[in-house]
Amino acid sequence: MAAIKSIDDLFLHTLKDIYYAERQILKALPKMAKAAQNEALRDAFTLHREQTQGQIERLQQVFETLGKRAQGITCEAINGLIEECEELLEEAKEPSPVRDAGLIASAQAIEHYEMARYGALVAWAKASGRNDTVKLLEETLSEEKKTDSLLNDMANKDINPQAAKAA
Amino acid sequence: MAAIKSIDDLFLHTLKDIYYAERQILKALPKMAKAAQNEALRDAFTLHREQTQGQIERLQQVFETLGKRAQGITCEAINGLIEECEELLEEAKEPSPVRDAGLIASAQAIEHYEMARYGALVAWAKASGRNDTVKLLEETLSEEKKTDSLLNDMANKDINPQAAKAA
Repeated sequence: MAAIKSIDDLFLHTLKDIYYAERQILKALPKMAKAAQNEALRDAFTLHREQTQGQIERLQQVFETLGKRAQGITCEAINGLIEECEELLEEAKEPSPVRDAGLIASAQAIEHYEMARYGALVAWAKASGRNDTVKLLEETLSEEKKTDSLLNDMANKDINPQAAKAA
Repeated sequence: MAAIKSIDDLFLHTLKDIYYAERQILKALPKMAKAAQNEALRDAFTLHREQTQGQIERLQQVFETLGKRAQGITCEAINGLIEECEELLEEAKEPSPVRDAGLIASAQAIEHYEMARYGALVAWAKASGRNDTVKLLEETLSEEKKTDSLLNDMANKDINPQAAKAA
């Protein structure tokens, strides 16, 4: 891997990291949708998969703007986050509100990772005056925040109370 | 590992996950402080290490409230997040504002993981009427949010502009 000496190197490194991460998330979401018992949750995962496809295309545009080839680098954080979600589905084998509550928490941990990464990318793009990339990255950041907030509402209003009743 | 069948099982599983994570963070923070060039950033990591010690003690209180032994389970997400931070320090070998900007982003990714996990724990504790644990978990959640916001300010006001100038 190339040495990181400038803010541009740091930006590119992190861009490759989140590009890898988004493609792993794209593969994980259909499994999460399939595992969800709650219909609204299943729909939310399916919709977020479509959004993720759009987010990947935005990243490709950012690479293009920088004159670089779109390329991922292994992101151990997202691998760990997805592995934890798979473990949960192993431990909570049957579809249930409890399993759904765990799925939401896994999805929110993934959203939070993305928020942190896109937040840093936006900050670095602004600091180095790369306004051509700021808008694209901010659009995705805003989508991730909305998804997190939607999952919060579903958990609090519906799925967590059901999971608590199931005890 | 025990099967997850109730919201209490899910809560305990996630409690063990974050207990492991906090102890890994406790070990990582002195290395992050040592690697930081900016004095205020070094101080922030050192202070957050003390806070993390307090957060571990709060988790032990939560285990005690549940009548369970404080015990961690391997959390692949935090392992991945810390590994990414170590990789960054490998790629950006010399102390510099660019390295500091990367360190802040790594720390924020860790904070975001914690926010997601404590957020879920608080939500589940509330849903199952375990008010005895809510306050402890909310205190830590609030500390994590403040740390993230402090790091944001340091990055935007000071370290990112310096890193951009260094290019």
